[in-house]
This record gives sequence, structure tokens and C-alpha cells, in this order.
Amino acid sequence: MPTIVVDVMPKAELLDPQGKAVAGALNRLGIDGFAGVRIGKRFELTVEGEVDDALLETAQRIADEILSNSVIEDVVGIEVIE
Amino acid sequence: MPTIVVDVMPKAELLDPQGKAVAGALNRLGIDGFAGVRIGKRFELTVEGEVDDALLETAQRIADEILSNSVIEDVVGIEVIE
Repeated sequence: MPTIVVDVMPKAELLDPQGKAVAGALNRLGIDGFAGVRIGKRFELTVEGEVDDALLETAQRIADEILSNSVIEDVVGIEVIE
Repeated sequence: MPTIVVDVMPKAELLDPQGKAVAGALNRLGIDGFAGVRIGKRFELTVEGEVDDALLETAQRIADEILSNSVIEDVVGIEVIE
């Protein structure tokens, strides 16, 4: 079955305490080379049947209105896999 | 600055209550066409300098050992963007 993947990240101008915690852990473990870590969400919507333009539009709407909070998050990607 | 994106999803054989809740909400809102929703994490690791093979290997190791819990999650993707 095809799957629509929606990626949501915290807005760049907002603090991401979870990401900061992971970045701090990498530092303490002596792992270099990374300047920062941010943590967002990946939604996999399994599609019944075919992916058409109408369904993609619905997915875009769901991503903007239900899967993300536009005050603090951005939808950074919507793609179809499989 | 280049960014390494690590995608982590709950294992297919495990329940994903968060995803189930979203799928139920879509249903109640009368949004059809989706058979299921699963919710995972998207990590963006900002890289200081260049991405080379050693750093990618480090990222793979971090993904497996720190960013995911292999008992309940799978690393489903590691890619470099920008």
C-alpha cells in the first residue's frame, strides 16, 4: 500500500529542549562533528487504494491543520513512498 | 550547513497508540482514504563542516545506539540534505 510521509519540525526560531538534550548527550559522550540536534515528527499515513491529487490535497490539509501546530511547528515535507 | 536526517519509526509489529489516536480522529472528522497512521521521529543533526564517510558512520552508530531504542523502534532512513 502506498504511504504518504509528512515531516513536521519545531520552528527554527523556537528552542527545542529535547534536541538540546540529545546534543548535550553527544557532547558528553565525546562525539564531535555535530553543531546541533533538532527533533521533529514523522507521520506515515497508509493509503487505501491509489494516491491522486485530491488525496494529496487532503494530506496537505491534514498536515497543516491536524498533524502540526502552526504556532510552533512547520510542515517540512510531504512525499509519497512505495 | 549540511544536515543529516535520521528517521525512526515504531516497529511494524508494535502498537502505536499515538498513531491510532490520530487515525481515529481522522475517522471522526469524516476524512477518508487513509487506512492507518503511525508516528515516529525525525532527527536533524546539523553538521559542522563537511559530511564524510567517517561522519556518516558516526551518524549511523548514533542513530542505532542513541537516537533509537532497537527493542521498539527501527531506523528507517539516514540521508544528507543541503
